[in-house]
Amino acid sequence: MRIVSGSRPTGKLHIGHYVGILENWVRLQNEGFETFYFVADWHALTTGYDETQNLAEYSKELIRMFMAAGLDPEKSVLFVQSAIKEHAELQLLFSMLTSVSRLERVPTYKEQKQQMEGNQSLANAGFLTYPVLQAADILIYKGEAVPVGEDQLSHVELTREVARKFNYTYNCEVFPEPESKLSHTPKLPGTDGRKMSKSYGNIINIESTPEELKKAIMPMITDPARKRKSDPGNPEICPVWSYHKAFRITEEDKKWVFNGCTKAEIGCVQCKKLLLQNMEKTLTPVWENLVEIDAREGYVDDVIYSGNKRAREIAKSTMHEVRNAMNLLF
Amino acid sequence: MRIVSGSRPTGKLHIGHYVGILENWVRLQNEGFETFYFVADWHALTTGYDETQNLAEYSKELIRMFMAAGLDPEKSVLFVQSAIKEHAELQLLFSMLTSVSRLERVPTYKEQKQQMEGNQSLANAGFLTYPVLQAADILIYKGEAVPVGEDQLSHVELTREVARKFNYTYNCEVFPEPESKLSHTPKLPGTDGRKMSKSYGNIINIESTPEELKKAIMPMITDPARKRKSDPGNPEICPVWSYHKAFRITEEDKKWVFNGCTKAEIGCVQCKKLLLQNMEKTLTPVWENLVEIDAREGYVDDVIYSGNKRAREIAKSTMHEVRNAMNLLF
Repeated sequence: MRIVSGSRPTGKLHIGHYVGILENWVRLQNEGFETFYFVADWHALTTGYDETQNLAEYSKELIRMFMAAGLDPEKSVLFVQSAIKEHAELQLLFSMLTSVSRLERVPTYKEQKQQMEGNQSLANAGFLTYPVLQAADILIYKGEAVPVGEDQLSHVELTREVARKFNYTYNCEVFPEPESKLSHTPKLPGTDGRKMSKSYGNIINIESTPEELKKAIMPMITDPARKRKSDPGNPEICPVWSYHKAFRITEEDKKWVFNGCTKAEIGCVQCKKLLLQNMEKTLTPVWENLVEIDAREGYVDDVIYSGNKRAREIAKSTMHEVRNAMNLLF
Repeated sequence: MRIVSGSRPTGKLHIGHYVGILENWVRLQNEGFETFYFVADWHALTTGYDETQNLAEYSKELIRMFMAAGLDPEKSVLFVQSAIKEHAELQLLFSMLTSVSRLERVPTYKEQKQQMEGNQSLANAGFLTYPVLQAADILIYKGEAVPVGEDQLSHVELTREVARKFNYTYNCEVFPEPESKLSHTPKLPGTDGRKMSKSYGNIINIESTPEELKKAIMPMITDPARKRKSDPGNPEICPVWSYHKAFRITEEDKKWVFNGCTKAEIGCVQCKKLLLQNMEKTLTPVWENLVEIDAREGYVDDVIYSGNKRAREIAKSTMHEVRNAMNLLF
């Protein structure tokens, strides 16, 4: 089964990207799926067309992080969207099959449009049509499944509709209707309990040193009702507890933390020290991979080159079918 | 000065296309402009995505007609839009710079949206964004002027805005701001006085025989107040008069027709016979060209091949500048 997914190049990756997206991608790769993962650099333009100074750099950085997280260029096709011009061509063709009113009903569009009130210039056409680009991203590789969080379910639904409408309109079977592979990884909050976001200054980069991890974790907000060690705490509202669950705490330690907190038997410092150990354990292989990747000059470039090549071959072959089905001269 | 313009492949061309568009294109070519003319097959999808059975055939037919009308593949770059994938790439990038509300204000969009009430499925995203595709079509060749009718002025204005915004946002001088070259060719009415349209059955194909021309012109509607030769007529409301002006009537004959009609000195049959002579005179070189073109096997294909090649080189070079300006990796 073929899986396609992409991620925007937005700079240094934080641990929320790692446990929310990359770990999941690596698991799918290692479970034997045929995995296509790409840097969605064109998508990055939909909300930041005027901040592209570092786009090329960030794109390479993302491929580097893909590999550091455990994506193996021998097993997964790792590539950069803007290198495969066929995505743009298919997006254009799909835009003929997708009504404006359908796109206006996409929940992420409605939401983001509300959020950007007062900055209407962001409501650009590329932003309205980006679910069509996503459909092209997936269908050009005939993706059969898409790993998504809940907020992306509606995009996969649109992709299925586009596939169906294309096959029906041109009386063909070019595209599969991909299914959503819902990942249940909870979103990691920032160190202050709010949404993890660069603009809030509450993120932790994957590429942190152990010292930097410590500096970020030790002052982390916990249950505000727990002022002293003797106050019992509620893990369900504590961001440290979310981190524990994301960073592979053992079942035994889980009980120790939960009971120790709710019964006021352990302090937050003890709890955070355990978290730090587990974070280091999880991230150490990633850090080691980074050292290895950086030691090989031109390695990231080489991976991009050959990943693009593999992706392009498939994209070209799909577009050949598409043009035939539509009777386009080219 | 470089001129870019395109035409949709909609089947056999009628004489309205000839006197309204092609004659003008030929004149610009012969006046020494650097002319790029293309088959806008992707544009044809914006209002007819589900009627593509003959798209490839119609695209070739249009190039054949370009040449028959006098466009010389040695002087003009004649190509097919869908062969130059870079148009789609640039369209995608420009869609990030163009707000949805700006596109909704384009008069042709507002108009056509009104016309298609009851058939809302036509209000697809590709239809909303087609002025962005037009901007890409023109700017990818750094077109400096665009021959347009009045109804297309707003598209060129949008193209200028996109060019300006791109140069400003990325602090570069990649694109010129093309000017409109307004052509004053009046729209030729159909033989029944209404808008010339295949669906009204009131068109005259360029590739008519003299016999077919006669059959179409002789029963043409004239001033309805002129029931008998002795009734004076009003040329200003007579479609035959529009045809006379479009088909190179001499100044002397113009006076003869005008006076003869308004003073009831000539009959409509006499007037139409003169028109037929002039139409044959205008169209004979086109018909002769068609015979020549059709006699050379594979000629149209060869012209398309080399036109595409020339267009592609320039498009690729522009996209190279675009990607550099935007810091895209590819």
